[in-house]
Amino acid sequence: IGSNSAEADSQTEWTDVQKKIIPWKNSSPSLDLEMVFQDRAAKLGKSNSRLIVVASLIDKPTNLGGLCRTSEIFGASALVVGNLHYIQDKQFQHLSVSAEQWLPLVEVKPSQLVDYLQQKKTEGYTIIGVEQTAKSFDLTEYCFPEKSLLLLGNEHEGIPANLIHHLDVCVEIPQQGIIRSLNVHVSGALLIWEYTRQQVIKQKQKK
Amino acid sequence: IGSNSAEADSQTEWTDVQKKIIPWKNSSPSLDLEMVFQDRAAKLGKSNSRLIVVASLIDKPTNLGGLCRTSEIFGASALVVGNLHYIQDKQFQHLSVSAEQWLPLVEVKPSQLVDYLQQKKTEGYTIIGVEQTAKSFDLTEYCFPEKSLLLLGNEHEGIPANLIHHLDVCVEIPQQGIIRSLNVHVSGALLIWEYTRQQVIKQKQKK
Repeated sequence: IGSNSAEADSQTEWTDVQKKIIPWKNSSPSLDLEMVFQDRAAKLGKSNSRLIVVASLIDKPTNLGGLCRTSEIFGASALVVGNLHYIQDKQFQHLSVSAEQWLPLVEVKPSQLVDYLQQKKTEGYTIIGVEQTAKSFDLTEYCFPEKSLLLLGNEHEGIPANLIHHLDVCVEIPQQGIIRSLNVHVSGALLIWEYTRQQVIKQKQKK
Repeated sequence: IGSNSAEADSQTEWTDVQKKIIPWKNSSPSLDLEMVFQDRAAKLGKSNSRLIVVASLIDKPTNLGGLCRTSEIFGASALVVGNLHYIQDKQFQHLSVSAEQWLPLVEVKPSQLVDYLQQKKTEGYTIIGVEQTAKSFDLTEYCFPEKSLLLLGNEHEGIPANLIHHLDVCVEIPQQGIIRSLNVHVSGALLIWEYTRQQVIKQKQKK
């Protein structure tokens, strides 16, 4: 009563999604995440990427849904969002085209980001901010380490100053237009692509 | 009467936009477009890109608006759309963030595409389809000519078979995800970026 099949489907999907969500603070985060990566890579028979995309500062469900789709397609190991409730948003789902069912999702609230980035550093990740600063590397000149964590900025405010101190490096995309900068989903997509491109070339050189 | 200031603003903007629209069939298209490129590059003091992005097959105003923004930021010389009325669409404008005021726009209807592509070939452009085919180049291995024309496919049907014959080359983006392929705006953005990256590196090597 009060439920129809569409709602029931939606409930089922949400339960399926929840199974793939990794609680960050409830247990040893690195161990859980590593297990999920290996499990996923083994099942899919593909390379075990070590790229983490952190979108906790992003507000718009459309940007998060788009990043979810793009991250999944390039085999990122996880997408970190500020709140898991975004996944239930219709705009998110419209843009993600169900990628959230295949990509591990981690919830790290903005207030937890400093701790999370420190934790990832101890695990060997290089913390890369996508931001224009006086010391930023040009994306055409930056070589991504295998264990890369991309921190994307907020749509309006970018990466706040207190977080900039915790980054290992900032990378910026050279832009020559008149209008304001790239959409954050596109910026993220370009860095995800550039990481992927460099890994593909490295793997070919090994053979 | 029946008009408010928001509408008046919108009218003014639309008139401004129209001034930058190049009619393709009404006069010598190549001459007009070359003049616009040189004029724009001179005014902005920047490199005179020879990248044309053809989005005539794309239906969704959000994808067109996003491509307009991204093309402008990377200094593409023109964006070709199937119908100029898209520019008046609110979703287009929301995504383009006014980039249509700075980027030359050309209208080429899908039925005119064969003629248009042939014309551009005679002007020295390489016609590059963004499409997965048996003969496609991997984007990690393709070197873009200076005069490149990117033809993007429709959201659902890609590039129709009758147009594939008129392409010089197809390029595909290597994808390893479970879900269906990248959004067409993101695909376009990655090729625009890759063109830009290669041009930047070539210019540095010359110095």
